[in-house]
Amino acid sequence: MTIRYYWEDFPAGLVRDIGSFAVTREAVLAFAHEFDPQPFHTDDEAAQASLFGGLCASGWHTCAMAMRLMCDSYLLEAASLGSPGIENLRWLKPVFPGDTLGGTMTVLEARTMASKPHVGLVRSAWDLRNQHGETVLTMEGWGMFRRREVPAAAPA
Amino acid sequence: MTIRYYWEDFPAGLVRDIGSFAVTREAVLAFAHEFDPQPFHTDDEAAQASLFGGLCASGWHTCAMAMRLMCDSYLLEAASLGSPGIENLRWLKPVFPGDTLGGTMTVLEARTMASKPHVGLVRSAWDLRNQHGETVLTMEGWGMFRRREVPAAAPA
Repeated sequence: MTIRYYWEDFPAGLVRDIGSFAVTREAVLAFAHEFDPQPFHTDDEAAQASLFGGLCASGWHTCAMAMRLMCDSYLLEAASLGSPGIENLRWLKPVFPGDTLGGTMTVLEARTMASKPHVGLVRSAWDLRNQHGETVLTMEGWGMFRRREVPAAAPA
Repeated sequence: MTIRYYWEDFPAGLVRDIGSFAVTREAVLAFAHEFDPQPFHTDDEAAQASLFGGLCASGWHTCAMAMRLMCDSYLLEAASLGSPGIENLRWLKPVFPGDTLGGTMTVLEARTMASKPHVGLVRSAWDLRNQHGETVLTMEGWGMFRRREVPAAAPA
């Protein structure tokens, strides 16, 4: 995989489209049976009687689908070093089989690391929407990226 | 599934063990290929050269495994109505194939909802540790549960 994006390519204010993802019933059920078999994720009748009104994806499945969108739209071509965590994760609307998810990532803040001169930090916000334009998921998080230009070490 | 736990069964201060989960190489690779195919989750050589030092689970996979632990230890027997979101999600240590994860949930706060008298909110903290006693994941979140005893409506 060719690296195209380094820390310098994620300046504050950048907005990127992260593509789209089709949510299938099979995938919703498979994820739920493996990780989150609550009745509103596995059983149509129970889901219809729930607050969600119908069988819907586990919130963690929605996060995983958002991750796949990030990977395919920029992360697999970026010098990504992982993430320390996430803030303000909100499941705002249920995600149903048949939905198509899309959205954006917005860079909120970018800074270098004093302790690791070859690494930069990027704080981003993600906004995931369904085909009706409704936001289903928002979250913010820090990512670590290698810097394209590593500053020369200061003289001792 | 018999409901044993209602909102009243999650008072502030409650600490519950959430059992344990064995992390397999097959599961780490399967989740990564489906949702997070960054090289440190899919390729041994790339992972050894990364900050993680070896092939490790996607952070979202760790969240999903934590969810499974919650489901099996109390949530599938609880009158759970879903969650609006998560705060302070931290991936503190990489999770490697062969690890065994376990941990606790601690109730931080419990309150009723004025707008929905039959529903109560519970704010919990989860602490997921590996077999070395190292915390790999922490997070906090609100859950909604039905109340066992629904208060009578106030006279009009």
